[in-house]
Amino acid sequence: MPQTPYEQDKSSERVESETDLIQTYLAPLACKMPGAFGLRDDAALLSPEPGTDIVLTTDPIIAGVHFLPSDHPGDIAWKALAVNVSDLAAKGAEPLAYLLTLALPQAPKRAWMAAFAQGLAAAQKEFGCHLIGGDTDRTPGPLSIGVTAIGTLPAGAFVPRQGAAAGDHVFVTGTLGDAAVGLALHRDPELFANALTEDDRKFLIDRYLRPKPRIALCQMLRAYASAALDISDGLLKDLVRLAGPLGITLQFEALPLSPPLRTALAGDARIADAVLAGGDDYELLIAVPPNGAEAFAQQAAHLGVFVSDLGVLQDGLPITVLGHAGTPIEAHRLGYDHFAR
Amino acid sequence: MPQTPYEQDKSSERVESETDLIQTYLAPLACKMPGAFGLRDDAALLSPEPGTDIVLTTDPIIAGVHFLPSDHPGDIAWKALAVNVSDLAAKGAEPLAYLLTLALPQAPKRAWMAAFAQGLAAAQKEFGCHLIGGDTDRTPGPLSIGVTAIGTLPAGAFVPRQGAAAGDHVFVTGTLGDAAVGLALHRDPELFANALTEDDRKFLIDRYLRPKPRIALCQMLRAYASAALDISDGLLKDLVRLAGPLGITLQFEALPLSPPLRTALAGDARIADAVLAGGDDYELLIAVPPNGAEAFAQQAAHLGVFVSDLGVLQDGLPITVLGHAGTPIEAHRLGYDHFAR
Repeated sequence: MPQTPYEQDKSSERVESETDLIQTYLAPLACKMPGAFGLRDDAALLSPEPGTDIVLTTDPIIAGVHFLPSDHPGDIAWKALAVNVSDLAAKGAEPLAYLLTLALPQAPKRAWMAAFAQGLAAAQKEFGCHLIGGDTDRTPGPLSIGVTAIGTLPAGAFVPRQGAAAGDHVFVTGTLGDAAVGLALHRDPELFANALTEDDRKFLIDRYLRPKPRIALCQMLRAYASAALDISDGLLKDLVRLAGPLGITLQFEALPLSPPLRTALAGDARIADAVLAGGDDYELLIAVPPNGAEAFAQQAAHLGVFVSDLGVLQDGLPITVLGHAGTPIEAHRLGYDHFAR
Repeated sequence: MPQTPYEQDKSSERVESETDLIQTYLAPLACKMPGAFGLRDDAALLSPEPGTDIVLTTDPIIAGVHFLPSDHPGDIAWKALAVNVSDLAAKGAEPLAYLLTLALPQAPKRAWMAAFAQGLAAAQKEFGCHLIGGDTDRTPGPLSIGVTAIGTLPAGAFVPRQGAAAGDHVFVTGTLGDAAVGLALHRDPELFANALTEDDRKFLIDRYLRPKPRIALCQMLRAYASAALDISDGLLKDLVRLAGPLGITLQFEALPLSPPLRTALAGDARIADAVLAGGDDYELLIAVPPNGAEAFAQQAAHLGVFVSDLGVLQDGLPITVLGHAGTPIEAHRLGYDHFAR
């Protein structure tokens, strides 16, 4: 197993105990929220406002699976929280709090823990939530970080994954494929060395390392969306989930791509796979009934969030992607599955 | 790394995909609870009754740390849920639901998954909660199971860890040290081979494998306790947490011990360490103000839960354990810490 940076860092002491780890580095992230009890209790307490529903989601990230063991601790921390907050945003829920479980290969070095906590502090500030509880363990396996994110929304306003109807427009936020190409660049700095500028590379890698959950759209999703989810396993796979029994015809040319991604695509047509099935985008796929589609697009633009109308869901139609001259494009894989052979 | 039983089981097919794993084995555990969406959404929804607070807790269990890789999948599942529900019970919260994250070394065999799901089904039926969401991943590390348990209680009734005052009685439920000795027996079947009967061994091992959260006391804790927590890291370590700046003098002879534990202790005096610092008891330590102590003890007995009064918390006193002739007993370690050297 490759060494994590905190093993390579010879200059820093290790934390002394669980109490040291929690009270020195994590308790400040509770920001004196009453139900967090300074992370000194075994459980956290929430007192929901009347008329409020609670939304809960949990996605762990594991070294070697969801991030590279050599990634900067601040990036790892950001991603751990961001991928969970992204699920809240897709449901129209505002982030409130989170629980954190750390399984660490050994007592971490102080420098590593401090950088990790700084990453969490930046992320929770950006997302508007606080740490309220969790657990720390030593593991014989790779570094694993589990976040359970807790959001709130007005009672009855939850945006389900399954709720789209024929005729609904499918919108996607932001641009597609950046994170998948960013991961490839992160792994292999020589990739597209001639085609991409240093800024292009930084942009794409940052899209992989620091996904930005679309919290700004929470309220609009509650007002307009019949269904939504975030793209974590790839556009096509998550589109199948949104569409259910319905279908849609996508024009590849109309998919929103960032300029650096277009440059990479011009150099290697296989980059189309990253767009259709790459995963890790953490953009939202949103179904909006026809009478709300125009207002939704306008108001998203007003909020500064770029959304693209991919087309209309229809009965009795497959999900197809058409290329240049109307020829169907096949993705070489549908998206990520941990257990498929 | 030792093979898990699902690797040794040659007769069973592997699950085919994440969807197969979730829909075949886990979705039935959602029991059609509305906010679980049949485990087909990325998030779960709770609609708390007005006047209700929400309690959240999360403790993962990891193969080789919290259970043996060779343990029966039904026992692993039970323990994963029980250790979390135990934290809810200590706060006076009734279990409502849980999220589950599975990090599996590879696609599990069907027989293993079925037995694991059966263990969860038995546990959640016993504890009165349902699965409402989670995530599954493949990991290069050991099998890890993360549970986030969600409980409810009347607003303002949360029982904190820190709330005990001088003069409060400290009660403990059940008996101490069984699980620590059970773990030793589970690892080494030859231990105490002459002293313990087969039934004794089964009792102690079962106390380790299948902890029974003290949910029956939830309501009484809310009515009587000034502070409480469950004993997961050992009596003395968790007593320090309950007592805060206060102290107490324990009589070792007065500690509640099961008959099999007494037999083991008679054979080996070092078993005292298992009682004082063994951990994994999942019994509750409860501080009760003096005016409620008698009623608390009576009503617990009425509910069929055996509780012992360990003494009274006092200012300006250390935590001491006195043996036979009033001589202090030193535990050889204070309790479990994942990162202490």
